[in-house]
Amino acid sequence: MRAVDLIVKKRQGRAFSEDEISFLIRGYVAGDIPDYQMSSLAMAVFFKGMSAEETGYLTRAMIDSGATIDLGGVQGPLVDKHSTGGVGDKVSLVLAPLAAACGCTVPMMSGRALGHTGGTLDKLESIPGYRTDLSVERFTDLLKRTGFAMTGQSERIVPADRKLYALRDVTGTVESIPLITASIMSKKFAEGAQSLVFDVKCGSGAFMKTLEDARELALSLVRTGNSLGRRVRAVISDMDQPLGLMIGNFLEVREVVEMLRGGGPKDLLDLTLRLTAHMLILAGIQPDLQSAEAECRGKLQDGSAWKKFLENVELQGGDVRAVQEQDGGPRAPLIEPVEAAEAGIVHRIDAYQIGIAAGLLGASRERKEDEVLPDVGIELKKVQGDSVQAGETLCLLHGREPERIDRARSIVQGAYSTGGQESKAGGRVLEEIRDDDLAKD
Amino acid sequence: MRAVDLIVKKRQGRAFSEDEISFLIRGYVAGDIPDYQMSSLAMAVFFKGMSAEETGYLTRAMIDSGATIDLGGVQGPLVDKHSTGGVGDKVSLVLAPLAAACGCTVPMMSGRALGHTGGTLDKLESIPGYRTDLSVERFTDLLKRTGFAMTGQSERIVPADRKLYALRDVTGTVESIPLITASIMSKKFAEGAQSLVFDVKCGSGAFMKTLEDARELALSLVRTGNSLGRRVRAVISDMDQPLGLMIGNFLEVREVVEMLRGGGPKDLLDLTLRLTAHMLILAGIQPDLQSAEAECRGKLQDGSAWKKFLENVELQGGDVRAVQEQDGGPRAPLIEPVEAAEAGIVHRIDAYQIGIAAGLLGASRERKEDEVLPDVGIELKKVQGDSVQAGETLCLLHGREPERIDRARSIVQGAYSTGGQESKAGGRVLEEIRDDDLAKD
Repeated sequence: MRAVDLIVKKRQGRAFSEDEISFLIRGYVAGDIPDYQMSSLAMAVFFKGMSAEETGYLTRAMIDSGATIDLGGVQGPLVDKHSTGGVGDKVSLVLAPLAAACGCTVPMMSGRALGHTGGTLDKLESIPGYRTDLSVERFTDLLKRTGFAMTGQSERIVPADRKLYALRDVTGTVESIPLITASIMSKKFAEGAQSLVFDVKCGSGAFMKTLEDARELALSLVRTGNSLGRRVRAVISDMDQPLGLMIGNFLEVREVVEMLRGGGPKDLLDLTLRLTAHMLILAGIQPDLQSAEAECRGKLQDGSAWKKFLENVELQGGDVRAVQEQDGGPRAPLIEPVEAAEAGIVHRIDAYQIGIAAGLLGASRERKEDEVLPDVGIELKKVQGDSVQAGETLCLLHGREPERIDRARSIVQGAYSTGGQESKAGGRVLEEIRDDDLAKD
Repeated sequence: MRAVDLIVKKRQGRAFSEDEISFLIRGYVAGDIPDYQMSSLAMAVFFKGMSAEETGYLTRAMIDSGATIDLGGVQGPLVDKHSTGGVGDKVSLVLAPLAAACGCTVPMMSGRALGHTGGTLDKLESIPGYRTDLSVERFTDLLKRTGFAMTGQSERIVPADRKLYALRDVTGTVESIPLITASIMSKKFAEGAQSLVFDVKCGSGAFMKTLEDARELALSLVRTGNSLGRRVRAVISDMDQPLGLMIGNFLEVREVVEMLRGGGPKDLLDLTLRLTAHMLILAGIQPDLQSAEAECRGKLQDGSAWKKFLENVELQGGDVRAVQEQDGGPRAPLIEPVEAAEAGIVHRIDAYQIGIAAGLLGASRERKEDEVLPDVGIELKKVQGDSVQAGETLCLLHGREPERIDRARSIVQGAYSTGGQESKAGGRVLEEIRDDDLAKD
């Protein structure tokens, strides 16, 4: 087998066998297949795609490139959720304890903030003392005790993805649905999940800008999961505007706490309930969305999800009082309003620009080496559909440096669109792709 | 400017500016743009193409990557021909002295045999003593004295092409029309030609297997030439069957000598006349094909092309007697017939297989390092349309080792198709693409 022949094969639109994909990934990780062949192959895959079967082979070959987390000793059902990333997306922090309270085991390994999007690890680490660098032993132990645990991704997991992603990043081949699918899915399955719910974000604040692209990725994820014999569902959710009212690490933790205590903004609550409900169904705990969502509401209302969360904070070294007390935890030294220039009704808040502004305040990082601040961010006071008077506060900027606050303000002003006509926020859930529906096709 | 952004730009099907292409080629040659970016870009170009204008920019950027041959001191008109390569294609050896005899100056720099195709340099070097490693000074001097000279390509010419071609060869990106166009054209113009006639071969023995592909390349060559302000024409010629009767280095020289003395097979003669006639037109020496072909016939008949050839052989150090005398020059120790298995009419002789068989006898090389033999090859005795009896000689194999002759024989037997029905050879010239016709579009 020669890599160049396989490149030509894909260029001609022909499908790879499992052996061929395994040869390519092994060879690439071993250094026998050089970057310049892999990048031209990735571009051919961008243009010619891969079937769900091929993407399944690729996912498996990538899993096999490194260590996998053996959660054999943990009581199932092991089910996880993965979001493609957005602005104000703190769903995981509610969903994990909630699903655990309902009987799932959630082995959650998360990523960090980059560019305009936040990262679950940075949000958790904004809780003073909270540790996300758990050993596999400690992670397993916490899973057994609380039913969920939150940690960073091990370097030993899916090395093929790290190498391939770094290459794709500089060769214009990031935006390939099968390559994205295998990248996401290989990590999640290597981490020990048995079934998966995906939150495929769609809109200005998301990686997928259009519903069409989001649908293509969602279908690819579910079909590839099927081809691997796993239960996988995907929810396509609106990320054209920030999710909830808080954007920034500890600001988002506060909103999470509010939700876990039975409150919180409706858009965030609805999406969290839906995603968790799909997890309960895949876990075999509930038969349908209605009963599953009702179960989840109950566990939020009766405080059992909140109790799970507090247990976890304590076990992972976090300051429980910082999350329990109204004014506990980090707080930015400067909190300044952004005021409406004129009266009107808020039509849209551009998620991408809000994400950029929050990043500028220090809530995210431009490069991997940059530091992220726990206390800064944006607190929305007016959202889509609200009417505002001239001079009224649209949102609050939490920051450390006046100069950065000024720059963030001008971006936030551009992010708000107001007009004379009424505007009503739609639901966050745009579409759902269920493995059992696809199986009927 | 960042290479990754340009890769994405091309991936999206957008056109490059001259500055962008210059940035890419300079950066690649300087080592600032790594192979893995250039290979993914090449694959994007494979799928999204390039306009004639972009291909012109690429050609110019590649010319600018190295030295150019300054033929300023040589009397024009400087016109050259380039063939995309075939089996039995010895046209250059007749065409160069013929065009020179008609008043053109032909600065011919040629390549070597590889795989199933022959190479002009190897054919010339089969003449004992003939040197193809001329210095630029010597090359210029010969051009002034005889009106043509034959040499190898300088290492200093278009280094971008050498680097890029080696990369394309291992990354499945050879078959890209704009990249092929710029590769061919940059070398020819860097070598000092002012106008160019291309012989785009088409069929089993050619790089372009179908008329459609050959037409696409021919159009790209002529349009790109136009975009650079040069006069360029292309002839698409049939390479489904070997050209002429001789395949192999000195065997082909013998056929060349026969033609220069007024004989030779009709298919070879017709194609040579047509290509040379286009050169005379581009050079402004003749107004149309009819008069140009008549002029060429005259120069073959009156011996002036033959005289030019002998002058050149002497000046480049070759043994004039080896080409003048019937039995002069190298001769293989073994000459064995391939006999017809049954009676019938020859319908086709597969050029690719004949090329492979000749290569096996030693007429070409598998890898660049391999040695090529001057004396070996295949002499066709029966061609398309000829009727044969069982046991009659189809062709003679000239070789050095019985074992290789046996292997070549079985390939040659497979190359011949015979049948009961009549078969008539068509003309070699399939289509012609003239710059002045395109300019009218």
